[in-house]
Amino acid sequence: MKNQDHGTLLADCQSEQDHRRIRIDRVGVKGLRHPIEVRDRSFATQSTVATVSLLVDLPHHFKGTHMSRFVEVLNAHGRLIHVKNLFSIVHALQKRLDAEVAHLIMEFPYFLEKRAPATGAEGLVDYQVRFEAAAYRTETDFVMTAVVPVTTLCPCSKAISDRGAHNQRGYVTASIRSSEPIWIEELIEIVESSASSPIYSLLKRPDEKFVTEQAFDHPVFVEDLVRNVAVRLNAHCDVLWYRVEAENMESIHNHAAYALVEKHSGDNGGG
Amino acid sequence: MKNQDHGTLLADCQSEQDHRRIRIDRVGVKGLRHPIEVRDRSFATQSTVATVSLLVDLPHHFKGTHMSRFVEVLNAHGRLIHVKNLFSIVHALQKRLDAEVAHLIMEFPYFLEKRAPATGAEGLVDYQVRFEAAAYRTETDFVMTAVVPVTTLCPCSKAISDRGAHNQRGYVTASIRSSEPIWIEELIEIVESSASSPIYSLLKRPDEKFVTEQAFDHPVFVEDLVRNVAVRLNAHCDVLWYRVEAENMESIHNHAAYALVEKHSGDNGGG
Amino acid sequence: MKNQDHGTLLADCQSEQDHRRIRIDRVGVKGLRHPIEVRDRSFATQSTVATVSLLVDLPHHFKGTHMSRFVEVLNAHGRLIHVKNLFSIVHALQKRLDAEVAHLIMEFPYFLEKRAPATGAEGLVDYQVRFEAAAYRTETDFVMTAVVPVTTLCPCSKAISDRGAHNQRGYVTASIRSSEPIWIEELIEIVESSASSPIYSLLKRPDEKFVTEQAFDHPVFVEDLVRNVAVRLNAHCDVLWYRVEAENMESIHNHAAYALVEKHSGDNGGG
Amino acid sequence: MKNQDHGTLLADCQSEQDHRRIRIDRVGVKGLRHPIEVRDRSFATQSTVATVSLLVDLPHHFKGTHMSRFVEVLNAHGRLIHVKNLFSIVHALQKRLDAEVAHLIMEFPYFLEKRAPATGAEGLVDYQVRFEAAAYRTETDFVMTAVVPVTTLCPCSKAISDRGAHNQRGYVTASIRSSEPIWIEELIEIVESSASSPIYSLLKRPDEKFVTEQAFDHPVFVEDLVRNVAVRLNAHCDVLWYRVEAENMESIHNHAAYALVEKHSGDNGGG
Repeated sequence: MKNQDHGTLLADCQSEQDHRRIRIDRVGVKGLRHPIEVRDRSFATQSTVATVSLLVDLPHHFKGTHMSRFVEVLNAHGRLIHVKNLFSIVHALQKRLDAEVAHLIMEFPYFLEKRAPATGAEGLVDYQVRFEAAAYRTETDFVMTAVVPVTTLCPCSKAISDRGAHNQRGYVTASIRSSEPIWIEELIEIVESSASSPIYSLLKRPDEKFVTEQAFDHPVFVEDLVRNVAVRLNAHCDVLWYRVEAENMESIHNHAAYALVEKHSGDNGGG
Repeated sequence: MKNQDHGTLLADCQSEQDHRRIRIDRVGVKGLRHPIEVRDRSFATQSTVATVSLLVDLPHHFKGTHMSRFVEVLNAHGRLIHVKNLFSIVHALQKRLDAEVAHLIMEFPYFLEKRAPATGAEGLVDYQVRFEAAAYRTETDFVMTAVVPVTTLCPCSKAISDRGAHNQRGYVTASIRSSEPIWIEELIEIVESSASSPIYSLLKRPDEKFVTEQAFDHPVFVEDLVRNVAVRLNAHCDVLWYRVEAENMESIHNHAAYALVEKHSGDNGGG
Repeated sequence: MKNQDHGTLLADCQSEQDHRRIRIDRVGVKGLRHPIEVRDRSFATQSTVATVSLLVDLPHHFKGTHMSRFVEVLNAHGRLIHVKNLFSIVHALQKRLDAEVAHLIMEFPYFLEKRAPATGAEGLVDYQVRFEAAAYRTETDFVMTAVVPVTTLCPCSKAISDRGAHNQRGYVTASIRSSEPIWIEELIEIVESSASSPIYSLLKRPDEKFVTEQAFDHPVFVEDLVRNVAVRLNAHCDVLWYRVEAENMESIHNHAAYALVEKHSGDNGGG
Repeated sequence: MKNQDHGTLLADCQSEQDHRRIRIDRVGVKGLRHPIEVRDRSFATQSTVATVSLLVDLPHHFKGTHMSRFVEVLNAHGRLIHVKNLFSIVHALQKRLDAEVAHLIMEFPYFLEKRAPATGAEGLVDYQVRFEAAAYRTETDFVMTAVVPVTTLCPCSKAISDRGAHNQRGYVTASIRSSEPIWIEELIEIVESSASSPIYSLLKRPDEKFVTEQAFDHPVFVEDLVRNVAVRLNAHCDVLWYRVEAENMESIHNHAAYALVEKHSGDNGGG
């Protein structure tokens, strides 16, 4: 290994003084792909691949941060990711980068084994999940987000048409803060039960009949969808905050219908 | 302007001899954005923004091509793009880059003003269009592609369900070669008339009733959709070749249903 | 036109009462593509294509909004988009949708004709621009964002290496609020002068020599880049607020280096 | 489970006769996400997430294929994916869908643990890999593709500039057919050794010095890059065919430089 001992001799630009007097809110690495194992409710853990951001603040007197240390902190941690041990990464970032504030953001596909509603045939459905953990000195924050594909059937189209009703795939992006950890599975179930129908990867004919009729019997606008999710999250004892977005890939348009509801501090639930 | 006359003194690496004896099939620039004006059937021209690739072949004895010349050829041409004048760019590439083969690929959003089917309300719908022009010595080739969003309603879901039928937005990607220029508008109409319903940007309630019922009355699988397009293209005197793909953003799944049919040389139409 | 008079007879689900008591923060259409003309500093207007979102709030007692009205408001406006007339769309949304709050978001490629630094050769460079206009009752808000591609050359790599220095394309996303309208061109210039070098679409050999040496002589970390922009925006009399992000497509990594600085209310400039 | 026994009673539209006399080249499912385990050279297997397409041909006399069967075939196979057992999926598709032709396409991120060149620090680098397996009756075909990020430094910029040279991240997309299975790792090494420098996820200062100087000492155009890879693949006894593309995210432009070389049948190597 040549150059092994260059480390101490090479200039360290990043540690130089900076004179512009501008503190940087967030600095670090983005778009780092990393294999992880996530705790799941049914199988203890599942393997997946995350896209990771690691960020800290930078006081105004430092010229730069040390980018390689972010990667070292992540590598040192091991692959098992659980809500509790996310903060060991965040605190290690604070310490290693000499920072007051540190953020860890992980996005990954997450799989649930679902049974088709009529035949019980099993198939995996993928959901995009995001974990955002942050520490501000000794305070910590955690936001969990799931992007849940659902079927939505238009109440207006059903009401005014002699037959049929337009429906489509919609995506609900639900973010929560909670007093106790909530399973990804639970958040997904809350969303799926708020839509016209959940979606599945494997449906045999009796299942297709079932979901077609279920969607027809439970029409929702994007407005209904985010409100249904909000009602359920308001009723959940452990949910402190939420933001829920729904976006329908309208089957009759080339654009999307969209709604967002957020629980504001002091709200009695998004209202 | 300092350095103005450096041009003749600076080394020209690209013109050096190469000894690896490997001819390069395509070399040039990709992902160049450029405002263009496209001839349309209703308004003479429309302004849009293209993403452009300009490519040539490179004989084995040259080390490199001259990337800046591709951009110069494009800039010299002006912004009005029509099927006929595309070849002036392609031939200029051949000449300026000393190439046997030259390719020009342009992708751009293209807009049609459509009337809603019941109220006649007007709205613009966007279609992604691609022009691929190529010259092989004196031979030329032109492929036009349109990506057409449509509504598809599942025949199986309709047949087996007591009420409703799942439907969704699908995208048909239709590419053609023709003996005479065909309007983009005509290719789009061929595709839209092959689906359960065209899509629109502006639909009032009577229109929504109309398209809902129309889609319910014209169910198509992705297989039907590509075949319906193929039948119409087979019947078109000027169409020499086609490739038609359909991809449904299934409303009951998180994956797509897909079909492709291509007219092979010697085919009596995709068969 | 059959069904022409169905409008009054067809059920209006959206206007029904809602009993969930949940106000919706934002509802409307997203991803609508629309050709526009934008005022520019050099040519009066340029034609481009926007992706548009139109959103309003919805009081808790209404079941749904009327999606087609958003499109009608946009269509009624005509294509010429200028900072001042954006608010006529926003106010029309408030009125037509009976809303307290309305948002208009437009993203579009915007082109500048730039002269190469040594030869003066002309070429177009594309920048992604976003206009966000909002009205809260009678108050209005406008945020302009430009995504500016630049060259960044690493100060550390230059300082520690015997020859060369790694460099790459970076993207600076700069958002501002201002007391007076600021030209897109001016914001772009502020960012470009903060980087190692601007980028160009057309560079002849003397130009390539020029930008290579210029970048080598002006190394910047992502931290330097956002601070340089912040210093310039702090010094600009009309800028009230900014958020500046830089993201480097690192040439030595498969991930990005990232920094963000925001002027917080009460800040003496991001500090 | 109501409807459990509907299966036999529900109409089977897909099996109906079709009279348009148009054979479909490919039909099936696309964009299905699925967790897999891939054999790797160092650790026996690694867990990752694939995006999967499963496609067959459809004779002209069938109206439709049975989409759920594609998913069942994939689910029945288990998660361990190796070049040899890919064909068990493909043959199962042929049998289950009564098809002459079947295709399986899997794209997934793949990770290599790489040591930094000076300090030996370890870090994971991600590569996008694609497996395409197909069967035409009893004949089979397999194409392996790796998208390899690399550093490229411009020979022209180096030759004409007094100091520095522009460089950037480039992506090489290398596809091969081979007489014997070739490790993904081997294909990646062939590409990385053809560039100005490999990229890494973790580089300490001595490493950054090393890769900066290495890239400066090994300048390559996109043309050189694809030719260097082609020369190595021509020299490899087991490689029967290749197509190599290089795309540079030019640090001085907002567009890409691109080159492609393909070994044509009968070629003595891309020539």
